[in-house]
Amino acid sequence: MSGSGISELDRPRVSAAAAEKAIAHLLRELGNDQVIGPEADNLEDYGHDEGEDGWYTPACATLCESAAEVTAVLAIAREHAIPVTPRGAGSGLCGGSSPIAGGIVLSTERMTRILEISTDDLVAVVEPGVVTGTLAAEADACGLFYPPDPASLAFCSIGGNAATNAGGPRAFKYGVTREYILGLKVALTGGDLLTLGRRTSKGVTGYDLVACFVGSEGTLGVTTELCIKLLPKPAQVSTILSVFAGVDSAAAAVHNLLRTGFRPRAIELADKNALDHTRATSRFRFPQNAGAIVLLELDGEPEGLEATTLRAGQMCEANGAIDVLVAQSAAESQQLWQARRNISPSLKRAHRHKIAEDICVPRGAIPEMLRRIDGIRARHNLDIATFGHAGDGNLHVNLLVDEDRRDPVVGARIEAALTEVMTETIHLSGTLSGEHGIGLAKQRFLHLEQGPEVIAWQRRLKRFWDPDNLLNPGKIFPARARCHE
Amino acid sequence: MSGSGISELDRPRVSAAAAEKAIAHLLRELGNDQVIGPEADNLEDYGHDEGEDGWYTPACATLCESAAEVTAVLAIAREHAIPVTPRGAGSGLCGGSSPIAGGIVLSTERMTRILEISTDDLVAVVEPGVVTGTLAAEADACGLFYPPDPASLAFCSIGGNAATNAGGPRAFKYGVTREYILGLKVALTGGDLLTLGRRTSKGVTGYDLVACFVGSEGTLGVTTELCIKLLPKPAQVSTILSVFAGVDSAAAAVHNLLRTGFRPRAIELADKNALDHTRATSRFRFPQNAGAIVLLELDGEPEGLEATTLRAGQMCEANGAIDVLVAQSAAESQQLWQARRNISPSLKRAHRHKIAEDICVPRGAIPEMLRRIDGIRARHNLDIATFGHAGDGNLHVNLLVDEDRRDPVVGARIEAALTEVMTETIHLSGTLSGEHGIGLAKQRFLHLEQGPEVIAWQRRLKRFWDPDNLLNPGKIFPARARCHE
Repeated sequence: MSGSGISELDRPRVSAAAAEKAIAHLLRELGNDQVIGPEADNLEDYGHDEGEDGWYTPACATLCESAAEVTAVLAIAREHAIPVTPRGAGSGLCGGSSPIAGGIVLSTERMTRILEISTDDLVAVVEPGVVTGTLAAEADACGLFYPPDPASLAFCSIGGNAATNAGGPRAFKYGVTREYILGLKVALTGGDLLTLGRRTSKGVTGYDLVACFVGSEGTLGVTTELCIKLLPKPAQVSTILSVFAGVDSAAAAVHNLLRTGFRPRAIELADKNALDHTRATSRFRFPQNAGAIVLLELDGEPEGLEATTLRAGQMCEANGAIDVLVAQSAAESQQLWQARRNISPSLKRAHRHKIAEDICVPRGAIPEMLRRIDGIRARHNLDIATFGHAGDGNLHVNLLVDEDRRDPVVGARIEAALTEVMTETIHLSGTLSGEHGIGLAKQRFLHLEQGPEVIAWQRRLKRFWDPDNLLNPGKIFPARARCHE
Repeated sequence: MSGSGISELDRPRVSAAAAEKAIAHLLRELGNDQVIGPEADNLEDYGHDEGEDGWYTPACATLCESAAEVTAVLAIAREHAIPVTPRGAGSGLCGGSSPIAGGIVLSTERMTRILEISTDDLVAVVEPGVVTGTLAAEADACGLFYPPDPASLAFCSIGGNAATNAGGPRAFKYGVTREYILGLKVALTGGDLLTLGRRTSKGVTGYDLVACFVGSEGTLGVTTELCIKLLPKPAQVSTILSVFAGVDSAAAAVHNLLRTGFRPRAIELADKNALDHTRATSRFRFPQNAGAIVLLELDGEPEGLEATTLRAGQMCEANGAIDVLVAQSAAESQQLWQARRNISPSLKRAHRHKIAEDICVPRGAIPEMLRRIDGIRARHNLDIATFGHAGDGNLHVNLLVDEDRRDPVVGARIEAALTEVMTETIHLSGTLSGEHGIGLAKQRFLHLEQGPEVIAWQRRLKRFWDPDNLLNPGKIFPARARCHE
């Protein structure tokens, strides 16, 4: 493993004997078809996520098909004092679903039923394993709209989105996953299966327990069902790609658009290095002097959207855009988005390591943060490409490394640069993670953002819901400090 | 006191000697100007809110001017084991700020500083005593927009809005208070002053502790500062008032508007009885056959909004509206809104008691809920007027009583009708309160909506944050049951 700085010593251990007994118990309860044991070839698929935080071998993985089975697995884990790592689609980027403590991986990948989509009530009721893109498509087919659109839309699960409070480009206008989760069924390690929240879009009966679990990265409970808020489907969508000489003029254009009252559903920004990486694969030809792009998406009623879109484009021109393209069709819009979507895979293909951070700064601090990233790049002689959600100040800062990061000298350079990225983010009143979560990848930076009392209260809240520390232990909060507590 | 069903026996008691010592301590710490003692004429102003849940006399009220003073009051309360009831503007409707346990009222009414409004970052930083309407106006003056608009906008406080997670008409498009609270400073009874959340619009670093406190009705901590998210100000707003023969056709029109993709910022509905009460005072003349109104407000970019508004009006006509008025100016819009806003005061003026519930049902269940309310009205021979936020299914069901509700026969009729309102709401998958909260007024109905485990976990969460039960004791959760726990 690499990057996360967790040593063997810090990890809870599972004895081989305890694991063996637990697996036998799980096999009796769930059967062969739903338990992936130590001999199975595909067990290692459950040992990591899509980030760079290492591979871990669990004792086994269980493929639950119902809330009752989730509760049963948690009961067995408790009986044998074995940790459980909940897992959605494993598409996270910060090690949140990596089973660092061994034990049982509890996968919800088979809980894929869409139980209901109600056009009357504007809600969907779904199991946690439903792929987010599937939910969005099914809602769309009913004339409804599920706004959150994380980049992993095509393969991430809605339960995982709830666990990480996933975002995406449309968050600027429509908010993040949290805003769409009206109700949750949650299984606790103590055996309770709680029905939380409601089916209505408003409601203030009692404490907001749904919000306790959303974004808790599988450390407090396991989601077994979600009641999701849907919106009327916007009648029309338009897309504009503006090319700027540099990020400063791009950021100024965004600022002026918002000051004029524009509220695009997405405001995406990419810097020169990010763009240059996509040139080879993109069907869209950026001008050679392109230093930044801003991709705007507007939606709303059909009357006037075209005129509004043109005005947004003109405003980009007035603010120094060297090229402005307004998509004339859905196909053209797809093409413009492809230019943006290509960035991340292009970076990944081109480099041995792509270390993807997702810091978030107050929107007005974007230009200054980009300047500071330039300084970090220069000081540490590192290749860095930045893109992200400019409306929210949520920047994906990608450290691109072709050397082996396990080389101590290289590793130290990366670590120094990452530490500076996080430190500068906090200096600008930002946050370590806009949408990925803390998991393993960022826990060593937690103290930069949060005071010791706030961290201590969160550790207590963890113990409140999961007193035996069985659920996804060692995540979010640094393990060494926990040992000292 | 009346309505809430809390007997003297259930209330925590404060001994006269303990109260006296605490007041002396508070006077030493805060001085005469900030402590309203037992002899002061205005102490009784701190003994109730705007609902019908009784008057209670606190031992004293403290007018804190800073976070340090809030922390000091909590420390003194702890030292003398005296309960503290936090209070914003006292504009609540369910007894949330009523000091049923006596003790100290901690008022934030003097903490009225707007510390910052940032047009770059789209945030405001404010103290909890800022009047919500003042914040909205100051944001507007900066070209920004604070959407939540509870009816008490002109006198409620932003801290109270956070404590109740206040809503309002615009919640359909823009969400409730929770969606606008990025960060909180919260004083706990144990002495900690926590800085929670962040200044960025996205962020998933650690647990969502802000959401723990929003909507917790002052039972977990006292807010001393808020970081509020603001939006770009919509360039244009339009208003349509449609008159229907009855609530069924009104509800059908709303349904069809939403199915077509309209997303008005407000969709207000009022029934015949609500309308009839406003006829005497309203400058707007409803047709005699008016059985319901729907007030729509749309906003967005200027291009096309007029055409969109006309199309919405035509759709209301096509769905049976007998009259459709589109405001031609801001003054006309004000006049149409006045027709809606007059309803509540007209009901209050016309009757001895106006018992205002704020149930919320799934949007599609509105017509059925209104039919069931008709049944309740008939069965109990009670006058009931209903209006509310149709887009959210949030209905203000007003029981109008001219007899003395302290008369046991009258009281029993009211109680039977209220119980049926709540029961039918839950049968239709609704919730007891869309925006007012539980406070005292609805705690006896809590078990209708939430299972015993969910209530038990909330009680534990209360003890987690406030182990000595000093903060607003006896709220949300029924007191008798607590004694048995």
